[in-house]
Amino acid sequence: MKVFVTGGAGFIGSHLCENLLNRGDEVTAYDNLSLGRKEFLKPLLSRPSFSFVENDLLKDVDLAQRLKGYDLVFHLAANSDISLGSSRTDLDLKQSVMATYNLLEAMRGAGVGRLIFSSTSAIYGEAELKPTPETYGPLVPISFYGAGKLSAESLICAYAHHYGIRSWIYRFANVVGAHLTHGAIHDFLQRLKADPSVLKVLGDGRQRKSYLHVTDCIEGMLFGFHTAKDEVNLFNLASRGVTEVRWIAEQVVAQVNASARIEYGSEDRGWSGDVPYSWLDSGKLANLGWKAKVESSVAVEMSVREALQWQNRS
Amino acid sequence: MKVFVTGGAGFIGSHLCENLLNRGDEVTAYDNLSLGRKEFLKPLLSRPSFSFVENDLLKDVDLAQRLKGYDLVFHLAANSDISLGSSRTDLDLKQSVMATYNLLEAMRGAGVGRLIFSSTSAIYGEAELKPTPETYGPLVPISFYGAGKLSAESLICAYAHHYGIRSWIYRFANVVGAHLTHGAIHDFLQRLKADPSVLKVLGDGRQRKSYLHVTDCIEGMLFGFHTAKDEVNLFNLASRGVTEVRWIAEQVVAQVNASARIEYGSEDRGWSGDVPYSWLDSGKLANLGWKAKVESSVAVEMSVREALQWQNRS
Repeated sequence: MKVFVTGGAGFIGSHLCENLLNRGDEVTAYDNLSLGRKEFLKPLLSRPSFSFVENDLLKDVDLAQRLKGYDLVFHLAANSDISLGSSRTDLDLKQSVMATYNLLEAMRGAGVGRLIFSSTSAIYGEAELKPTPETYGPLVPISFYGAGKLSAESLICAYAHHYGIRSWIYRFANVVGAHLTHGAIHDFLQRLKADPSVLKVLGDGRQRKSYLHVTDCIEGMLFGFHTAKDEVNLFNLASRGVTEVRWIAEQVVAQVNASARIEYGSEDRGWSGDVPYSWLDSGKLANLGWKAKVESSVAVEMSVREALQWQNRS
Repeated sequence: MKVFVTGGAGFIGSHLCENLLNRGDEVTAYDNLSLGRKEFLKPLLSRPSFSFVENDLLKDVDLAQRLKGYDLVFHLAANSDISLGSSRTDLDLKQSVMATYNLLEAMRGAGVGRLIFSSTSAIYGEAELKPTPETYGPLVPISFYGAGKLSAESLICAYAHHYGIRSWIYRFANVVGAHLTHGAIHDFLQRLKADPSVLKVLGDGRQRKSYLHVTDCIEGMLFGFHTAKDEVNLFNLASRGVTEVRWIAEQVVAQVNASARIEYGSEDRGWSGDVPYSWLDSGKLANLGWKAKVESSVAVEMSVREALQWQNRS
C-alpha cells in the first residue's frame, strides 16, 4: 500500500511510519515540525520506500496534487497539548478543524478514498458512564482539544457520506511510548531533568486515565482498518485498566532519581480542560477480535523506560 | 432582560424577537441579511425596546464592544439550507463553526455569560434508534450542516467549561411557521408559484420528519432556559409524531391549487446529506414539564396557511 501520514514526524506518526515500512508499505511522512521532530525519522530516511515532506496542512496549496496515487491517509497531525487550548482558543480550531477540512478537500480532489483518523477520549468530556463506550452521549467536551477533535470527526462523517471517503475514526486513550512529545510522562521527565531534586505535579495526582502503548495503538488501528468496512468505522482504542497520575510520578522518580521529592498541587484537575477521570470501554474492537497486549500501568512503566532510553540516546 | 439575537431577521429569529418584545425584553436583532429579511422585522422597528444591527459575525470587529451589557445571546445565525453543503463544502464551516467561534470570543470579551444555541436533529445523522434521545451515540452526521452544528456545539461546551458561559443547546426538529425562508413547505410554495400546474418533489416523498411550530420552538427554548441550570443544558426540541413529505406536498397543493399534479422523484432522500427518516425523542424536556402544544402534522398544516398569508400580504 502507498500510505500518507500527516503528523508523520510526531510521536505516534514516527512509530507508525516505521511499523508500516516493516510491513512492506510505501510511506510518506508529512509534518510541519511544529511538534514533530525530524530526528524521530532519522533511522527511516535511508529506506527506499520512505519519504518525508515538510509542509503545513494550513498552507499547502499543492496538497491535492501531492496526495494523488495514495491508497490510504493516516491523519495524525494536530495540536497534542490539551492545556494550550485555554490560552490560545483558536489553536485547535486551526490545527484540528481547518487542517482536517483542508486534508479532506485535498483527498476529495485527489480521489483518495480511505482515511484513518486519530480522535480522542476527550470528546466524551466528563462522561457519567465509565468505562465509556462509543455509544455514549451526549458528547460534552470540556477542552478545546476535545472540541476540535469532535469537529474534525463530524467533518469526516460528512465527507464519507458525500464523497465516499471511507473512514476509520479511533478515539484514543492516552498513548505512550518512546517518542513522547507531550503528556505526563514527558513533562515529568523534562521537569526532573531541569531539577533532579523535586518533581512538581499539576493537580493532586489523583487523576486516573487509560494509557495505551503506541505499539498497541498502531496494531489496533490496522486491525480495525482490515476488519471493519462500514462507511464510517468508529472505535475507542484503549488498553485494560486506568492508572493514577501519582503512580506515573512514582515510576518516573524511581527510574530517574529515587531520592527526588514529589510535590502535588491541590486541584483535582491538572489544568482547565483536563478530565480528571477517563476510562474508555474498548469492547467494540474486542468483539471484533482485538485487544491491547499491554495493560495501562504496564504501558506507563514501559514508556518511562523507553522515553528515558530515547532521551539518553539523542 | 437585554437580549441579543444573531440571525434576528431570519425565520425563527424574527418570530423570537417579536415574542421577546411582547414579554417586555429589550431586544437587538443582528443579521447579515444573507437569508434573513428586513421585512420580517418591519412591524418591530418602531418599538422603542427594539433595535436592528446589520452586520456579519465573520467580519464584525466591534462585536465584543457591541455585546457589552447584554444578559443573554440567542445564536440562531447559520446557513439553514442543508442541501447547499454538498456544493459548497466550506459554507457551514464558515457560517456555523467560524461564526460561532467569533461570537463566543466576543461574549468572553464582553463578559456575557448566557447563550442559547439552535442546534439540529441533523447532528444524529441516520440514527438507528428512533425516537432519538439526547443520549444517543455515536454521532455520525451525514450533512455538512449537521457537521457544522455539532462542531459549534462542541465549541460552546469548551467555552462553557473554560469561561463560565452557561449554555442551552437545543437540537431542533424541522421548525415551521409564517416567516419560512427554506425547507419543504417554503420550496413547495415557491415552485407552485412559478408553475401552478405541477409540484415537483425532491426524492420519493417517503421521507418522514418531525415538524415543530415556531411558537412551540420559542416557548420550549425559554422554558428550558428558565428551568435547567447546568453549565451546559442540552435538549432535543420537537413535537409529537412525524410527518411524511407526501403529506406536506398534499397540504400545499390543497391550499394553493387543488388541481396541481404532484411529481415525485425516485430517490429515497431529497439530496445528498438529507436524512430520510428523523424522529427526535423530546422526553428530556417533557420530564421537566414542557411539551409542544402543536403536533407535527398540525404544525405543517398551520404553517402552510401562515406562510401563504405572509406571502400574500407582502
